[in-house]
Amino acid sequence: MLKFWDHIPFSKKMNSIVIPDYINSIHPYEGGKPIKEVARELNIPEHDIVKLASNENPLGISPKAKKAIENNIEEVSRYPDGNAFYLKEAINKKFNISSNQIILGNGSNDILELVARTFLTVNDEAIYSEHAFAVYSLVVQAVGAKGIEVPANNYAHDLEQFLLAINKHTKVIYIANPNNPTGTLIDKSTLKSFLDNVPKNIIVVLDEAYDEYLDDDIKSEAFGWISNYKNLLISRSFSKAYGLAGMRLGYGVSSSHLIEVMNRIRQPFNVNNLAQIAAIASLDDDDFILNSKKINNLGMKQITTAFSGLGIDFIKSYGNFIAFKFEDEQAAMMYYQHLLKNGIIVRSIANYKMPEFLRVSIGLELENDKFIKILSNCNI
Amino acid sequence: MLKFWDHIPFSKKMNSIVIPDYINSIHPYEGGKPIKEVARELNIPEHDIVKLASNENPLGISPKAKKAIENNIEEVSRYPDGNAFYLKEAINKKFNISSNQIILGNGSNDILELVARTFLTVNDEAIYSEHAFAVYSLVVQAVGAKGIEVPANNYAHDLEQFLLAINKHTKVIYIANPNNPTGTLIDKSTLKSFLDNVPKNIIVVLDEAYDEYLDDDIKSEAFGWISNYKNLLISRSFSKAYGLAGMRLGYGVSSSHLIEVMNRIRQPFNVNNLAQIAAIASLDDDDFILNSKKINNLGMKQITTAFSGLGIDFIKSYGNFIAFKFEDEQAAMMYYQHLLKNGIIVRSIANYKMPEFLRVSIGLELENDKFIKILSNCNI
Repeated sequence: MLKFWDHIPFSKKMNSIVIPDYINSIHPYEGGKPIKEVARELNIPEHDIVKLASNENPLGISPKAKKAIENNIEEVSRYPDGNAFYLKEAINKKFNISSNQIILGNGSNDILELVARTFLTVNDEAIYSEHAFAVYSLVVQAVGAKGIEVPANNYAHDLEQFLLAINKHTKVIYIANPNNPTGTLIDKSTLKSFLDNVPKNIIVVLDEAYDEYLDDDIKSEAFGWISNYKNLLISRSFSKAYGLAGMRLGYGVSSSHLIEVMNRIRQPFNVNNLAQIAAIASLDDDDFILNSKKINNLGMKQITTAFSGLGIDFIKSYGNFIAFKFEDEQAAMMYYQHLLKNGIIVRSIANYKMPEFLRVSIGLELENDKFIKILSNCNI
Repeated sequence: MLKFWDHIPFSKKMNSIVIPDYINSIHPYEGGKPIKEVARELNIPEHDIVKLASNENPLGISPKAKKAIENNIEEVSRYPDGNAFYLKEAINKKFNISSNQIILGNGSNDILELVARTFLTVNDEAIYSEHAFAVYSLVVQAVGAKGIEVPANNYAHDLEQFLLAINKHTKVIYIANPNNPTGTLIDKSTLKSFLDNVPKNIIVVLDEAYDEYLDDDIKSEAFGWISNYKNLLISRSFSKAYGLAGMRLGYGVSSSHLIEVMNRIRQPFNVNNLAQIAAIASLDDDDFILNSKKINNLGMKQITTAFSGLGIDFIKSYGNFIAFKFEDEQAAMMYYQHLLKNGIIVRSIANYKMPEFLRVSIGLELENDKFIKILSNCNI
């Protein structure tokens, strides 16, 4: 082979790989610590560790989903159905949404990212709230677009400020409802009024990962809105109440046009086949969701009652987690470490500009008990 | 809530969502037809269908992997370990690659896409071969970069032409070795000489999804090259010989610097936990890989012998599939339909600018037999 190198005059001056600035300045997402990692680092047996750090379902998975996985392990040597025919059919059956209005994601993270990658360019802006789910800013930054963070109102989304932040560069708006990590909820009429006021060329992403935990009267009705708001996309998750965090499955619901465009850049096999099979079975297990919600309500009461007894401030939460407050960042970190050393994993939310808070996921009664006991025994 | 709409003068003129041109002009990837889909459409029982369309392992999955999945189903309610500590350890043990030189993907598709999303901007170019794996051009187009397709030399990558295609905008080069769908292989010395001639600011992605099917003397040694070529990234897959296509798992190996930068935009939980568990077990099952390779060698001989007997032209293949040729596109499509109607799914590769070819994956002996029988019975 000829040495072409010598004939490429610019090559010698370009010896190092150029990384775009917007990529270089990203701070990656940090999830809750896995149980095995804590066991390894602190030399504690795994079964002594209680993980209340990632808003997982403490009941585990639906027995129907477990059975479905067991019965279909042989399937994994085949590529998944990239169109997820049967899963879309199951979602349609449950929520009355046509297949062409559904896009499947490798977790709802994948949906949030696909919106950014499909619609945002380096000249565009996306709006989200202060203290909102960290993935919004990450996916916006990863495509080189500008993220506009709107100040929160007492930790909640301030949608009037969102409207004021809109300009001719605005292309996407992310709203978490309920929001993680604050647990705050926007009521339906405010949300609808907001949608009426957003220009139709702007995509509104409504992230409803925690909707299953809401009481019937405050549950989202947004699936019924998509025929009126073609710029609305709702994302849902199987990682929370459905107990399938490890399988990675979420979905987006929107106008068929937006779904079709997003599907163009979706990885053809982004959702593994056991996730599809488990999700179909889970959608058919209403009892499991009802029970998960019941356990969550009881646990939420158990923990907030204890917080009040201990004089610990917290933000009223509509999710399966709760953010609670200490005097300052230092106190929060000391409590975090104290809990961790005693085998309880909670979450620091300093990266959400809430350094004096910690976030705890609602567990089973005994897990919550252990959390409360160790929290109250802390001699700091 | 106030009606802000009226105070936003531009909004009324912008009623429709603007899609970037490069997204609008994408033609999404089409995978092989799933067995269930063919059964549904043609009203044939699933067990009568032979799928030889997606280069899957006809042996299924490793028994060790199956057992590992069975024993860990309860895990799926927990988020996966985003750092894949144990899987990286297993890869390290097998191939002697440090954890910080490994990135995990939701299939190797995810790795190929992460390269494009991390390093390419709309001002950059990426080079790949004519007839090369379709995902390269798709991921390049999805970020708005320019894809440069280098003409193939008798269906194989022409690396001298690659070098001539390099200019100051070139940032990434994708090479498939062996290539899908042509099955062609580049020998090691040519590849190494190529790497010596590529400017160090250009990332060379070496896609080795089919490496496990190569005989020992021609197997890749590229893992041993990464210390010398900091701009080299090798991608590997668990979807082929490892039999885990449905689980979605691939990985990239490169210099720690490139891996670190790519990890910044990797979805934190992109690899599900059963995939991680299954892959660890599979890496520990050398017998399964040896047997898969043996079955593939026998099947390749069985099918090429039949082709020769039938006077059908084909491209010598180093993978677990083979591209075979008809007089023209019309003949190829007629054979495709004839096979399909008789329950054999193969793949049209018209979208690879090879309309007169079909591609068949190597199956088990009986599956290959059925394919050959139906192929030779075609009265077209």
